Amino acid sequence: MGEHMATRKEVADRAGVSIAVVSYVLNDSNYVKEETRRKVLQAIEELGYETNMAARALKMRKTEQLAVLINHLGNPHEAGLLLRIEEHAAKHNYVLFFQTFHKEQESRLKALLHGRVDGIFLLGQSLQEETLRHFAKLGIPVVSITTPAVPRCDHVTSIDLDWTAEYRKLIRLLKAKGHERIAYMAIGDPEHPLSHRLKAFRQAMEQERLPLAEPDIFYADGGLQTAHEAIRTKVTAPGRFTAIVGANDLMAAGIVAACRASGVRIPQELAVAGSEDILMSSQTAPPLTVIHYPREKVGEIAMEVMLDKMRKRPASDRILQAEIVERASL
Amino acid sequence: MGEHMATRKEVADRAGVSIAVVSYVLNDSNYVKEETRRKVLQAIEELGYETNMAARALKMRKTEQLAVLINHLGNPHEAGLLLRIEEHAAKHNYVLFFQTFHKEQESRLKALLHGRVDGIFLLGQSLQEETLRHFAKLGIPVVSITTPAVPRCDHVTSIDLDWTAEYRKLIRLLKAKGHERIAYMAIGDPEHPLSHRLKAFRQAMEQERLPLAEPDIFYADGGLQTAHEAIRTKVTAPGRFTAIVGANDLMAAGIVAACRASGVRIPQELAVAGSEDILMSSQTAPPLTVIHYPREKVGEIAMEVMLDKMRKRPASDRILQAEIVERASL
Repeated sequence: MGEHMATRKEVADRAGVSIAVVSYVLNDSNYVKEETRRKVLQAIEELGYETNMAARALKMRKTEQLAVLINHLGNPHEAGLLLRIEEHAAKHNYVLFFQTFHKEQESRLKALLHGRVDGIFLLGQSLQEETLRHFAKLGIPVVSITTPAVPRCDHVTSIDLDWTAEYRKLIRLLKAKGHERIAYMAIGDPEHPLSHRLKAFRQAMEQERLPLAEPDIFYADGGLQTAHEAIRTKVTAPGRFTAIVGANDLMAAGIVAACRASGVRIPQELAVAGSEDILMSSQTAPPLTVIHYPREKVGEIAMEVMLDKMRKRPASDRILQAEIVERASL
Repeated sequence: MGEHMATRKEVADRAGVSIAVVSYVLNDSNYVKEETRRKVLQAIEELGYETNMAARALKMRKTEQLAVLINHLGNPHEAGLLLRIEEHAAKHNYVLFFQTFHKEQESRLKALLHGRVDGIFLLGQSLQEETLRHFAKLGIPVVSITTPAVPRCDHVTSIDLDWTAEYRKLIRLLKAKGHERIAYMAIGDPEHPLSHRLKAFRQAMEQERLPLAEPDIFYADGGLQTAHEAIRTKVTAPGRFTAIVGANDLMAAGIVAACRASGVRIPQELAVAGSEDILMSSQTAPPLTVIHYPREKVGEIAMEVMLDKMRKRPASDRILQAEIVERASL
């Protein structure tokens, strides 16, 4: 690596500004006029100035990296969120790294992220209060897409839908089609991000004055296959529920698959709905009526909130509106 | 951050080993006996020794980070590959960061990755020779899942299927069902990773002595919607092909959607097949016959090859076997 590396001084000289201004530009500061900024960026380009990221991270205490803790990247809803966060992070020169979060490995998180990130995105995981306080002390903001099931610390700012309101819309639609006994497919683990949706569904049913019987709540692990297995023998049971909502779309697709395997016609014999609107849901037979989760908007706002928190501006929880996409499954 | 940080010396004393052994363990070296390794890790745990990643990166010239350049995370095949690579990277204490690769931004790649990664995974992108030589000079290995369409430098080690052989299996299956005119849905950009599959399909057709007419090759951008639009008016054209293969599953699903919209029955009027076996392909109506791309195995081998290259061991291109999964679409 004997190549000559341009210095900040050389960049400053070429752009006709002070070294401090070059630093401001490199730090993405707001204090630099757009015209000056452009001159500095041009000088950087011409001189081939390359900041050594690791050296810079130490000096600036900025890594320009953001972490996303995911639950299961095999779920297209999560992959879609990751895609959207990355799009918006890239606009602000941040790169994203991600890590599948395993609750039993939470103690390793601090070491893993130490010195490596400027901010952390959660997808609804309930971290321990001690872990969150650790990041708060280091000045590393935490933004969660989906309200954590166990809210432990005000260091976390959340972006979410008003799930009770969204489920009420879906339930009203089902009521209008004559359904009174509506089942729900949830995830068993009370710390799982989706348990938040189960609570909201219970509330929505109560507000719509429909009883939700415990035996009408089914549990799977969030995947298509386990949902199929959990519901297989139920869809042909006499006197059962006439509609069912999946806490996520993969489970709703699993219910559709179970009906297909058992010869149960959708929607004539069972109405099925999902909660996210992944691409697959438009391709099942029949395609699924779903709550359309606004992933694009959520990714944009999550990055906005992250930047606010990094710049120590006030940031409060954000609630977004969704829409129901009606298809042939109910 | 006035907390006391344990030093390597303290870790060494507690574990009863030399400082060098602690360093070997931290570097994931093979020279340490498993028993010794466990003692050191226990001391690290007990003392709460936390390496500052950025400081360490500088000193060790190791970042313990690997980059993956993706094409489109909205494609579940890519998300699945990312998931598998992450699983295997985590076993070796590497974290993954990813970046959507835009050809026009290739010049920024070097600065972006400088000092940030120990290795780079491509998903078949054709990087410029100059970019690849830059990483070779820095000792940063490049491993590509999918052979780049434009192979420019021997610094890249590839993992791929023998696409010609796999397509021959699929074509033989179609021949056995009486098909002689088989179309293909490709991606137009000759530098796109999937253009590699088009070449293989042409070869396979030739070897199976079936003519592949240029008008029977359709082009879309890799997504479901554009594939649907590209084929919409063709599926009802008289005297057309009787079977079609999608270069990826999303496009095959787009063809299925176009047939549904036009009332064309699959497989009676048109046989359709995909090339990856994403989960969605098992849920379309009818479900798709596909080449099952062994994502799990590929993720494992990609990490194996990466470790070999990082340790300067010889590493050669790897070709994996796939299988056809037969479903109702042909």
